[in-house]
Amino acid sequence: MQIAIVLFPGFTVLDAMGPYEILSRLPGARPVFVAERPGPLTNDGGALTVVAQAAPAEVPRPDVVVVPGGPEANLPLEPGPLHQWLREADRHSQWTTSVCTGSLILGAAGLLKGRRATSHWLALEQLAGYGARPTGERVVTDGKYVTAAGVSSGIDMGLTLAGRLADDRTAQMVQLIVEYDPQPPYDAGSPEKAPAELVGEWRRVRGKI
Amino acid sequence: MQIAIVLFPGFTVLDAMGPYEILSRLPGARPVFVAERPGPLTNDGGALTVVAQAAPAEVPRPDVVVVPGGPEANLPLEPGPLHQWLREADRHSQWTTSVCTGSLILGAAGLLKGRRATSHWLALEQLAGYGARPTGERVVTDGKYVTAAGVSSGIDMGLTLAGRLADDRTAQMVQLIVEYDPQPPYDAGSPEKAPAELVGEWRRVRGKI
Repeated sequence: MQIAIVLFPGFTVLDAMGPYEILSRLPGARPVFVAERPGPLTNDGGALTVVAQAAPAEVPRPDVVVVPGGPEANLPLEPGPLHQWLREADRHSQWTTSVCTGSLILGAAGLLKGRRATSHWLALEQLAGYGARPTGERVVTDGKYVTAAGVSSGIDMGLTLAGRLADDRTAQMVQLIVEYDPQPPYDAGSPEKAPAELVGEWRRVRGKI
Repeated sequence: MQIAIVLFPGFTVLDAMGPYEILSRLPGARPVFVAERPGPLTNDGGALTVVAQAAPAEVPRPDVVVVPGGPEANLPLEPGPLHQWLREADRHSQWTTSVCTGSLILGAAGLLKGRRATSHWLALEQLAGYGARPTGERVVTDGKYVTAAGVSSGIDMGLTLAGRLADDRTAQMVQLIVEYDPQPPYDAGSPEKAPAELVGEWRRVRGKI
């Protein structure tokens, strides 16, 4: 079961590593980090360098595709080899997925037309520009397309996929070993729950996702 | 505000990247990945290579120290330069912290004597061997020592620290931008909540954290 996680310069670390930490623990999982230009890549914050192992051509038929996001300026939204690969990979994939603004990349590649999909709350409405139907849920499944909301939601998406790729028991085994029993010290994790003033402030400085 | 995140071969990705994703977003944060031998390092699963930027000597006085964990066989538990650096850094740090079995590393370096501390649930009792007082909570604060439970708990720890390093409003701003409104599809994230059969199975195969 090959799991291709896409990387690009300026990606958001947790977008990619949340699903990785979950899915890589499934029996038979073969995760691989794919980038248009393999080699060292730096994250959005600039402090972390990760090494993408594989070029798209080396991963022609992944079972699962995971596309993380990043600040909008960093996203590969222009037509090019990455989009072409996403469309090819999607032709045979079991699941095509994204976290955060990764759904804009899937959208730009033409893969979310007519699909219910989500994204980071600050980017949600932009999905409509790619023909998707923006849906403000944390994890949205439409056929084989699974999109997750902002950054940390990839962990929830990973567990949801784990249940489908394996079974509920296996997914729970993974949840237990990564001790995912969240206890956030605040309750400001969504625009519905956070104080309106904070939501407003992020909307003003938007782009710094 | 320098935040030193320790890396070592075979570390668990989310242990390090959960706190990184939160703390790096604080105003003035200067995160740096530190390893006894800087350069490329591979994670426990083997699929991810990250590049540690700095040797311990280059980061003599971090404000915050974060030590992730990994499967026990991979942990730097033997006396050596890393422990020496941890003790030196701890002398001046504002916060000395760990995620998962990272607390065993802090313990082995002699930094948790008499302290309430936590760890991955499968490793919790081992803390006593280092003179710490094992405490089965998700995030444990004792003075300037903050330890978190398994893997995913570093996100909760990061937000707790964010509130102390900055203030509650800033921590909530970070929670909102990483959309940390967890909705796990299962409720098996701790040994208290998971089916006993699963807890038993992990205890049997223990070591594969």
